[in-house]
Amino acid sequence: MSPPPIQIAHPGWLTLDGREFATDGDKIRLAIDLARKNVLRETGGPFGAAIFPVDGRRPVAVGTNGVPRLHNSVAHAEPVAIMAAEAFLDTESLHGHELFVSAEPCAMCLGAIGWAGLERVVYAALREDVERIGFDEGPVFAGSYEYLVERGVAFVRGLHRDEGAAVLDLYVEHGGPIYNG
Amino acid sequence: MSPPPIQIAHPGWLTLDGREFATDGDKIRLAIDLARKNVLRETGGPFGAAIFPVDGRRPVAVGTNGVPRLHNSVAHAEPVAIMAAEAFLDTESLHGHELFVSAEPCAMCLGAIGWAGLERVVYAALREDVERIGFDEGPVFAGSYEYLVERGVAFVRGLHRDEGAAVLDLYVEHGGPIYNG
Repeated sequence: MSPPPIQIAHPGWLTLDGREFATDGDKIRLAIDLARKNVLRETGGPFGAAIFPVDGRRPVAVGTNGVPRLHNSVAHAEPVAIMAAEAFLDTESLHGHELFVSAEPCAMCLGAIGWAGLERVVYAALREDVERIGFDEGPVFAGSYEYLVERGVAFVRGLHRDEGAAVLDLYVEHGGPIYNG
Repeated sequence: MSPPPIQIAHPGWLTLDGREFATDGDKIRLAIDLARKNVLRETGGPFGAAIFPVDGRRPVAVGTNGVPRLHNSVAHAEPVAIMAAEAFLDTESLHGHELFVSAEPCAMCLGAIGWAGLERVVYAALREDVERIGFDEGPVFAGSYEYLVERGVAFVRGLHRDEGAAVLDLYVEHGGPIYNG
């Protein structure tokens, strides 16, 4: 008999309620709001992500960090959102889509962004904000970004950085675990 | 209502039958055998992985590439094995465990190895073997390995490389899709 399937469940409070998000600012604030709710409800690390069709107003899928809740070290917000979007669209390619994430992606998530074929990534808090509270970002170099940019991924860094970083501080205030490998 | 959970199902033929694997050679051949079966049964890309306790003889979990079957670009053999092991052990840390994989990990999977806290990684086919059949390995640099080695991950490269590479050729012969992002 095969081992049981792996299950990655979203937190119970997470809903896609049909709201529209017009601008990059609105979309990054959705990702930051997911991160904030994840901290306040204590359902995972201080990270949230949302995937939109390019120029679309409704998210295809969202994700929150579920590492401590699910005991799953792969369940960062970005791969959760990517897998949810691919399941919803029934395709392993997210060409024509863009990712909004509350903080700069780690090494694993940058790789996942490349394989998903996402066209654009917008993030709020920067690597140094994430590392300041004790999280490791892994082996990410200037060359990592160059590699992805050459393959057609565009990056927008630090949009509403202060709001993304504030959620990281909120996590520390709540005594959230720092769970590096 | 929350979106449905993400499901990552193993192929139906995959079983953990209680067999014992004594040496690194035996363990890497299990990973290669999983990759070969995945090609022959047409259940995914030509990659297999197995996770053992350090010095243990029975795998905690295994994984095969499920990208085209599951329409999930994250479902490389390594994260599938990591998530399966963590689900089985009910922990997000695989300290005290080692990963055997049929080919050199890509950028995403190297990141995942770091976050899982795996102590040792043994792989068969090398990056150039994987790229020769058209797969991209992503932004992996010498510094990526140095970063992980400094944090306590040991790597053994190219053990039974020829057997791992032969599975890649078998995949090409079977007309398997090359599905880079």
